[in-house]
Amino acid sequence: MTDYQGILNRIYDEIQPLLGQGKVADYIPALAEKDSHKFGMVIKLIDGSTFKIGDADEQFSIQSISKVLTLTTVVKESVDFLKTRCGKEPSGTPFNSLVQLEYENGIPRNPFINAGALVTTDQMYTNFNNPKRDFLKFVRKVSGDKDVSYNEKIARSEEQTGYRNAALVNLMKDFNNIDNDVDKVLDTYFHQCSLEMNCEQLCDTFSFLANRGVNPKTGERILSIRRAKRINAIMLTCGTYDAVGDVAYRIGLPAKSGVGGGIVALVPGELTVSVWSPGLDKKGNSLAGIKALELFTTYAENSIF
Amino acid sequence: MTDYQGILNRIYDEIQPLLGQGKVADYIPALAEKDSHKFGMVIKLIDGSTFKIGDADEQFSIQSISKVLTLTTVVKESVDFLKTRCGKEPSGTPFNSLVQLEYENGIPRNPFINAGALVTTDQMYTNFNNPKRDFLKFVRKVSGDKDVSYNEKIARSEEQTGYRNAALVNLMKDFNNIDNDVDKVLDTYFHQCSLEMNCEQLCDTFSFLANRGVNPKTGERILSIRRAKRINAIMLTCGTYDAVGDVAYRIGLPAKSGVGGGIVALVPGELTVSVWSPGLDKKGNSLAGIKALELFTTYAENSIF
Amino acid sequence: MTDYQGILNRIYDEIQPLLGQGKVADYIPALAEKDSHKFGMVIKLIDGSTFKIGDADEQFSIQSISKVLTLTTVVKESVDFLKTRCGKEPSGTPFNSLVQLEYENGIPRNPFINAGALVTTDQMYTNFNNPKRDFLKFVRKVSGDKDVSYNEKIARSEEQTGYRNAALVNLMKDFNNIDNDVDKVLDTYFHQCSLEMNCEQLCDTFSFLANRGVNPKTGERILSIRRAKRINAIMLTCGTYDAVGDVAYRIGLPAKSGVGGGIVALVPGELTVSVWSPGLDKKGNSLAGIKALELFTTYAENSIF
Amino acid sequence: MTDYQGILNRIYDEIQPLLGQGKVADYIPALAEKDSHKFGMVIKLIDGSTFKIGDADEQFSIQSISKVLTLTTVVKESVDFLKTRCGKEPSGTPFNSLVQLEYENGIPRNPFINAGALVTTDQMYTNFNNPKRDFLKFVRKVSGDKDVSYNEKIARSEEQTGYRNAALVNLMKDFNNIDNDVDKVLDTYFHQCSLEMNCEQLCDTFSFLANRGVNPKTGERILSIRRAKRINAIMLTCGTYDAVGDVAYRIGLPAKSGVGGGIVALVPGELTVSVWSPGLDKKGNSLAGIKALELFTTYAENSIF
Repeated sequence: MTDYQGILNRIYDEIQPLLGQGKVADYIPALAEKDSHKFGMVIKLIDGSTFKIGDADEQFSIQSISKVLTLTTVVKESVDFLKTRCGKEPSGTPFNSLVQLEYENGIPRNPFINAGALVTTDQMYTNFNNPKRDFLKFVRKVSGDKDVSYNEKIARSEEQTGYRNAALVNLMKDFNNIDNDVDKVLDTYFHQCSLEMNCEQLCDTFSFLANRGVNPKTGERILSIRRAKRINAIMLTCGTYDAVGDVAYRIGLPAKSGVGGGIVALVPGELTVSVWSPGLDKKGNSLAGIKALELFTTYAENSIF
Repeated sequence: MTDYQGILNRIYDEIQPLLGQGKVADYIPALAEKDSHKFGMVIKLIDGSTFKIGDADEQFSIQSISKVLTLTTVVKESVDFLKTRCGKEPSGTPFNSLVQLEYENGIPRNPFINAGALVTTDQMYTNFNNPKRDFLKFVRKVSGDKDVSYNEKIARSEEQTGYRNAALVNLMKDFNNIDNDVDKVLDTYFHQCSLEMNCEQLCDTFSFLANRGVNPKTGERILSIRRAKRINAIMLTCGTYDAVGDVAYRIGLPAKSGVGGGIVALVPGELTVSVWSPGLDKKGNSLAGIKALELFTTYAENSIF
Repeated sequence: MTDYQGILNRIYDEIQPLLGQGKVADYIPALAEKDSHKFGMVIKLIDGSTFKIGDADEQFSIQSISKVLTLTTVVKESVDFLKTRCGKEPSGTPFNSLVQLEYENGIPRNPFINAGALVTTDQMYTNFNNPKRDFLKFVRKVSGDKDVSYNEKIARSEEQTGYRNAALVNLMKDFNNIDNDVDKVLDTYFHQCSLEMNCEQLCDTFSFLANRGVNPKTGERILSIRRAKRINAIMLTCGTYDAVGDVAYRIGLPAKSGVGGGIVALVPGELTVSVWSPGLDKKGNSLAGIKALELFTTYAENSIF
Repeated sequence: MTDYQGILNRIYDEIQPLLGQGKVADYIPALAEKDSHKFGMVIKLIDGSTFKIGDADEQFSIQSISKVLTLTTVVKESVDFLKTRCGKEPSGTPFNSLVQLEYENGIPRNPFINAGALVTTDQMYTNFNNPKRDFLKFVRKVSGDKDVSYNEKIARSEEQTGYRNAALVNLMKDFNNIDNDVDKVLDTYFHQCSLEMNCEQLCDTFSFLANRGVNPKTGERILSIRRAKRINAIMLTCGTYDAVGDVAYRIGLPAKSGVGGGIVALVPGELTVSVWSPGLDKKGNSLAGIKALELFTTYAENSIF
């Protein structure tokens, strides 16, 4: 049997020199104040066994990791969403670029770049009666934790500096690919990005994707097997900004990252693994987090390839 | 002496087959309702001699032609504007593209594409106490006509459909190249685009640029000689969207067009010539208007080359 | 135990309506003459068990599938190749585009677009004494078949129409990312693309990648475990032109396609599967082949996700 | 009457501090060896009056200035050339970029970027019996100087380093916009770029464009009035790489520059003016040359605007 705690201990030692090297996201104050020396990691098996190290219980802003959850709510209801309103190809460009969006007539390349997440949020806004409340309810259900919440301060800060996201949503509105009011879509989007979790909550939240669509704690089916596999596939090909090739090459697992420094990955059928360290590399992924996951798949021999 | 009336008569006959061929701008109802068979043209010499034909007295929306007037107010006050906030190179792309703007870090290529006009409006907003009122006052002065006005209905329609302009201004705000509130800049911009004139008023308004910076009617200096020449140069290299090369080649005069179907051109030291016909060609310039100006420089032998 | 022959039979029936729908590559005569109704498929387990259907024994031009083999020879010798001369990110653009290559200063996005394969060939040219002969020797070894050969007629045709590849290699030479003579690199490249195999040979050739780097027939280690996994990762994120997201989403296996209509995919630790049908879809992958592989992973429940 | 010699003297004094500041083109040795402190300038009126200063008699490589002469030979013979094979719009990109060429399907934006000049050369190759000899004959005729020649050493150097031009011509061949053999087109192109003149020869050569198409020395008509004007228009909108807007703004004359440090400009109906100084600015135009021409139009009050 794999000694996961031993692996975490070993990773923790090896990534120490990397702490402090990355650049903490500083476009809003609430993110900028995080200490770049923080590092937490959790491994959670399907059977519930949990292994932790470092700052695993500290709450952080999950940011773009929330895009997977929004997409989950949308593909449950809107079967053609990924055929008509959003692609599923890696972008080959920065996550917030407008260039490709204009060349491709307002159809985002995939749901995990900002443009794609905004159109996903627009679809969610259409599907739900009370989008912010209903989405939070969904997240609390899949995480199994009623205390998971939006951080209103972060949501407001995002809004005040969110000019590029406003540009993206207005450009898509111009291409008739946004159905609702742009300000309302942005407000919902900034709230979902402001969700806070710790590493263990993140593992819990994504465990249905590691377990073929079924929440392993409650036995509730969240998605069909096929849809769960497909979301994993999109995470692998589109989940880590313009570093998906490198992440597949070095880590070899479906993963989603956020500029808050969190990354969650999963081994289908086996486990979820999450890591948090706020210092980012040039591609916008947690610098120590990516290294930690690379060490994890090396030591646990757990790549999907 | 050139028989300008004879030239106008001849042009009027020759362009008849083109009327109705272009596509009237239809993104807002107030523009769409114009009859594509309309055609008016005015030649006005520096000495005040005026020659007219067709629908020369009908008011139309001058749209992008207003960008020259905004720029005029700005270069009078802000000498470094074209060095720091906006370029003066032709764009080689459609007038409302975001691609180049993103590659060039939010600095528009020139003041006559939409992005450049928005940043010019932002500078005007900073310079004036009451931007909409003060700009209108300026336009009434250079046109010598107190009745020139905004069309509020058009301004409101522009705003309701102006998602791409909202995308542009938000993207520039993200690059720190917009100083004022985005909604206020857009409101001012949509108003200036909604200005209405007829062909003669358009000739009067631009006559200071044909007369080395001095309003020939009043003798008032609007711009220095050097600045007037430079604005003429920008009109030649950037004034007709992505057709500037073709316009220089076929017409050979500084000119500025608008999607309302108006075009104004000038022969430095001699005259202004304006034309209006609402049917547009693929580049967004008046189809009959471009042909009329080509015939004008052929018959009057008045190209600057 | 999975009934692979039953699965092949079922797939064969279901894809019949698709045959003839795709467009056979016609840029060279030798490819254009293939019948778009041809369809062959082979599944080969690590233990050697083999299942076939349709035109499984007909030779075809493997074209871009050869790029994986060139890369294999290079990563064995040149450990820094994927750090310094070529990226490993999906491109988000057509396989033969020059745009991204120019923006990114002559460093191709990945080794499976044409630019990347050309720079890989250039490295192979440097590494081998007699590149064309030595590469063929390598391919014969991994395929276990001494009869695998270049098709000289196809190689010559490719050369005569290969202006875009000549453009790519000259552009990279301008960026100092080609070390050898451009004509010699092109000649080697066109030869490797002209390799001919049938579906079973293709399965044999790629079985070392399904078997953690070891040729399952001979027991010879071709690549280290880590390198084999990494090549599989690059196949998943970059192996099927601008359809990698869709292929990961629908098929969920590392795969490499060629414009000759062949595709090879693999389930790590279990099997290789190859399919050939010359009619291509809009992205340049075999239309019936992609569908057949989607059905395969559905029926065999064999996706890596 | 304008004191042209006085103006030259004044310019010569004022540009002294700029000499040595620009960067001499160093991609081939024969260009790199030129002293960046060299500066020559000539003004030549239509009536033959000539004014000189500095190194006005030193031969230099005219490089891209030759593109105007190639175009002249082509528009005389192939009336549809600028409608079907090459545009006439400014490019908004560097002179040797492949990006726009690919987006626009191998039709160059204008005849003065490298791609456009290569397709012009291809057309000239088709039109002439012996392209290199016949083109030289034409240049000797318009310059009135039988000693104007190719520099074979430079032509060979260009060829040995001309990978980017090879990329451009191969890409256009792929788009079926090159009719002749790529190597022969490149050879002719590199020869025309290697033409050597001094400032006075350059003025003589371009005087037919300042004189409505007629060589003022011989009275021979080289081009019709309309075609001469149109070539002047293309020089204004496309003649100085990605600085055409700035040159129109600061200088206000049709002009063509080359990386050898030469620039020729003209005042229609009046004069030609040429300047040479090998130090280039960031856009690839002679740094001191651009300033000298700006001073010229300021002092002589000779802008076309």
